[in-house]
Amino acid sequence: MDQSIIPDIIVGRIPLYLRELTRMAEEGKVITSSHELGRRLGISSAQIRKDLSQFGEFGKQGTGYNISFLVEQLRRVLKVNKVWNVVLVGVGDLGRAIAHYTGFLDRGFRITKVYDSDTQKIGQRVGDFTIRDVTLMVNEIRREKIRVAMLAVPASDAQSVTDLLVEAGIRAILCYAPVSINVPEKVKILYIDPVLHLQHMTYYLP
Amino acid sequence: MDQSIIPDIIVGRIPLYLRELTRMAEEGKVITSSHELGRRLGISSAQIRKDLSQFGEFGKQGTGYNISFLVEQLRRVLKVNKVWNVVLVGVGDLGRAIAHYTGFLDRGFRITKVYDSDTQKIGQRVGDFTIRDVTLMVNEIRREKIRVAMLAVPASDAQSVTDLLVEAGIRAILCYAPVSINVPEKVKILYIDPVLHLQHMTYYLP
Repeated sequence: MDQSIIPDIIVGRIPLYLRELTRMAEEGKVITSSHELGRRLGISSAQIRKDLSQFGEFGKQGTGYNISFLVEQLRRVLKVNKVWNVVLVGVGDLGRAIAHYTGFLDRGFRITKVYDSDTQKIGQRVGDFTIRDVTLMVNEIRREKIRVAMLAVPASDAQSVTDLLVEAGIRAILCYAPVSINVPEKVKILYIDPVLHLQHMTYYLP
Repeated sequence: MDQSIIPDIIVGRIPLYLRELTRMAEEGKVITSSHELGRRLGISSAQIRKDLSQFGEFGKQGTGYNISFLVEQLRRVLKVNKVWNVVLVGVGDLGRAIAHYTGFLDRGFRITKVYDSDTQKIGQRVGDFTIRDVTLMVNEIRREKIRVAMLAVPASDAQSVTDLLVEAGIRAILCYAPVSINVPEKVKILYIDPVLHLQHMTYYLP
């Protein structure tokens, strides 16, 4: 399983397969097929078989996939068979929604610290967290060896906060600010910007 | 410009180019190159030239791109040289953050109606909106010929609400619920699920 040779676009589909398989398991299903999974996801069964085959042999021709086995294997592939501690930076409306979201833990992530630079917010509660002073962030991330961050700061602050996160040892950043950020090659960054998706879709509208 | 022949993965990068070019224009830049744009986005200049060439001739060899012209052309390509009215369904923490977000309008989208099914919430204010009864939704979307929706309802309600949106004439749905939804072929749907992105990145972490 040489990571370097699996195209990133395939890697990016594995979490989607894992999510749907988990849902099937919750529905009480035991066995599935690439056809069923494909139908539920709107992806061709051939694509699914090809994608999964990059990571190993997970099913036998004709008998389909054992769902709980495949879930376990994909969690291992994605390294979410453990729980990653995550810091959240920025407690505006969006950061607040992220801090309240309960869907992280059973999928491999636990927010452990929430930071903001606004002295009005520092010390206040958001969900289960006390908002911490961002000036403490670098040392605390270093001490706790945290590798994953979610960034919900204003666009104007996104690059400078990212530089601090990288300095502290963060290696994966999910950025909600609608700007492109520069990070060293060793750091992964992905973006969530709803307008990019909306514009992608309006292209196709009459 | 036959839409059917341009790969969706390329279409999906155009909003990113537009966002960065708009930012350059705001910085006062007039001319850029595929090299500069690529450096800022972490995408190769060859990829950018190839992508843009799918949609027309936007620059001359050696002189680069006129930023405001290119912005105007890409807005036209993505059909955001107009403003699309958008409905938001679901006013939990996330829906609340979306309703408060001010970054839609200058990029082609205006939330005009916000719906929820919770009688405690209906009639209350969220940002500039009064939360409306979801039972009014289908008729109001039909009457106002709205084509774009954002869906921030619980996963368990996402499919049934989507079915209503499609029935009402919605043709593009941005779904924040962490589930895969079935829509007819004529309807575009994209998803925002932060955990998919986080799991995509942890694959690469040691």
